[in-house]
Amino acid sequence: MTSGPAARIDAARLWERHQRLARHGAMPDGGVNRQALSAEEIAAWRELVGWARDAGLAAYTDPAGNLFLRLEGTDAEAAPVLTGSHLDSQPSGGKFDGVFGVLAGLEAAQAFRAAGIALRRPLEIVAWMNEEGSRFVPGMMGSAAFTGAAPLDAFLAVRDAAGVSVRDGLAVLREAFPDVPSRPLGRSVAAYVEAHIEQGPILEREGCTIGIVTGIQGKRTFRVTVRGEEAHAGTSTPRERKDALLAAVRMIAALDDALRDGDDVVKFTVGRLDVTPNAPSVVAGTAVFSIDLRHVDSATLATLGDRIAGICAAEASPCSVQVDELTRASSLTFPTSMTSLVRESAKTLGIPAMDIFSAAGHDARFLHAVCPTGMIFVPCKDGISHNVLESATPEDLAAGTGVLVDVLMKLASD
Amino acid sequence: MTSGPAARIDAARLWERHQRLARHGAMPDGGVNRQALSAEEIAAWRELVGWARDAGLAAYTDPAGNLFLRLEGTDAEAAPVLTGSHLDSQPSGGKFDGVFGVLAGLEAAQAFRAAGIALRRPLEIVAWMNEEGSRFVPGMMGSAAFTGAAPLDAFLAVRDAAGVSVRDGLAVLREAFPDVPSRPLGRSVAAYVEAHIEQGPILEREGCTIGIVTGIQGKRTFRVTVRGEEAHAGTSTPRERKDALLAAVRMIAALDDALRDGDDVVKFTVGRLDVTPNAPSVVAGTAVFSIDLRHVDSATLATLGDRIAGICAAEASPCSVQVDELTRASSLTFPTSMTSLVRESAKTLGIPAMDIFSAAGHDARFLHAVCPTGMIFVPCKDGISHNVLESATPEDLAAGTGVLVDVLMKLASD
Repeated sequence: MTSGPAARIDAARLWERHQRLARHGAMPDGGVNRQALSAEEIAAWRELVGWARDAGLAAYTDPAGNLFLRLEGTDAEAAPVLTGSHLDSQPSGGKFDGVFGVLAGLEAAQAFRAAGIALRRPLEIVAWMNEEGSRFVPGMMGSAAFTGAAPLDAFLAVRDAAGVSVRDGLAVLREAFPDVPSRPLGRSVAAYVEAHIEQGPILEREGCTIGIVTGIQGKRTFRVTVRGEEAHAGTSTPRERKDALLAAVRMIAALDDALRDGDDVVKFTVGRLDVTPNAPSVVAGTAVFSIDLRHVDSATLATLGDRIAGICAAEASPCSVQVDELTRASSLTFPTSMTSLVRESAKTLGIPAMDIFSAAGHDARFLHAVCPTGMIFVPCKDGISHNVLESATPEDLAAGTGVLVDVLMKLASD
Repeated sequence: MTSGPAARIDAARLWERHQRLARHGAMPDGGVNRQALSAEEIAAWRELVGWARDAGLAAYTDPAGNLFLRLEGTDAEAAPVLTGSHLDSQPSGGKFDGVFGVLAGLEAAQAFRAAGIALRRPLEIVAWMNEEGSRFVPGMMGSAAFTGAAPLDAFLAVRDAAGVSVRDGLAVLREAFPDVPSRPLGRSVAAYVEAHIEQGPILEREGCTIGIVTGIQGKRTFRVTVRGEEAHAGTSTPRERKDALLAAVRMIAALDDALRDGDDVVKFTVGRLDVTPNAPSVVAGTAVFSIDLRHVDSATLATLGDRIAGICAAEASPCSVQVDELTRASSLTFPTSMTSLVRESAKTLGIPAMDIFSAAGHDARFLHAVCPTGMIFVPCKDGISHNVLESATPEDLAAGTGVLVDVLMKLASD
């Protein structure tokens, strides 16, 4: 590494902080269950705010439950440069997804201070609320509300499986942090950079440490509700039945048949299925399942997604079916000004880098609509993510943070 | 009705008691959720024990959590005649399934007392533990343990979805009733008669009030565990995935295709499916589903059931699958001595009756192995059961109870 601020990164501290945050929601198998607005996420917030204040940063929140850690610039009125990601995890997630982007940002701020560099623009490290969308559907609520992609009001009534609403969760969060002031949504942002593990196998396979993210794959999500009629498994004959689970099974099989392509590019996933009453000797009365559909080509994504309702309807009889689209996002391309910055920084620092397209969605999607946005990927072992086996190396995390520092310095000096 | 003890039945009281027990576990939609060994079932026990003691009966339990309400006979040493059913319900059950058999037995005992008839044999009204098998799998645990069809020890470690074991549930039950003495399992029984709603449409369709139950349809139940690998819905390509939910869907569809018959006689049901982690953007790591398979012909049931593991294995790739058989019961025929008694009693009382085969399983299955056993069915509206819409009329319940009184008098005088 060079002698610039990137050299002031404390790789051991960065690694240790990943391990410490992983204690909040730690599972016996080594994974992490730290869902949005949960007690575990609040505990992670608390530890992070402590580190940030010790480093001279100020903590803020907003009505959407996003967390901002601000390093003042020499021009306090200038729009800040934002960097970060999220602290929430999937129900059986790993230690790095989201957390890396937040901790890399904090490490960058500390590197600037350690190097005695005063940036013109304020730097804010952000942890967005509910990126994952596992407890509350859909995900990326915090960045959507911040950028105005969707009004916060649209999310407040969403409830988790236990009946707790986003509104309830936000109230608990606010109560837990009376000393963290709230600022309004929709402030101006000069630029946004998000560091993240790749969540795919490409960088590892290519032996590259840095992914210069050129864009994000499009995604459409749906909720399919199948309504049948509860009946006794021993007395009702198959012809008399309206079996919601069987109808859902027919739909999912038909969707998989119809949407799968020979090139293995379409990603069609049913990850969640809830059956009522879910009892072995009762024919199911209702079945509700999720659809997550992604494709790099926006036109193909639109065409495939538009077929879903028809395929479900064709398999529904004798049940009824309702298909609700929850999110719809086209594939997007980050501006070359941002990808160039990442490429140059990696080159300056002598770290092998390559262009890469993000198959996963990120909060950067919504920021892209309001300011110059880019992303930096680092490898994760075997491409595994959303899984307790998710793994990354201290060296790769430090290298990605080095590139982030260099990029942020240029953006914040602008 | 005649002037015998059947004339002493209080139809209004019988109906009122159905409504009162339905308050324990009452749901807003009119249904009942009163699962085995729950607080709701304990409350129903308490009310029932109160009624029985007021009527001069003594309450007993046994290590399997069965409840016995005993009317003494003139020969206290004689093996008792048993009648009854169960108080537990499905998660969204009705007011009559199980409850009718118990309340009809209590009403019969009160009718004998009101008529001043002293039976030679003791009469015991029984409420079997966990007939339904929805909270704890499999069902009919109490009658299985009582008759020795399975050792009680085989059930104690079974846990519900919240992790509570049958052992825990039985301890709570015992603590709730310190004044109900426990007697050993496996006592001699002179005969067993179970009154029940039909849970099918035949009696209603034929305009018959009494079903003379000739036997019970065979049943095999299985638990299928599909193991795949959790992965990110946006980054893992379909070919790389081991999607446990998709494999389960393929299995269920293939099973339904293979087992369904043109005559609509085979009953194949997947009523329960649990997915882990059950998150919209995570490829499922495991999927566990139930199979309930029934057929009137034991040989056909054996053949079809034996195909299940092979069909699941054929659809499993690239996941793995494990198929566990939980219960296996052949079709059975009740002795003609018992069906004749029911037929004669209905005739004596002038109530229209017909032979009927039980499509649903009942505790009578296990009693059949240890003593002369019979069943009496009454109609239920539209054949609907295991559903909040389950419905029966006060007149039909009273008519079935009248036949039960007459049958019990003959059995207990023997």
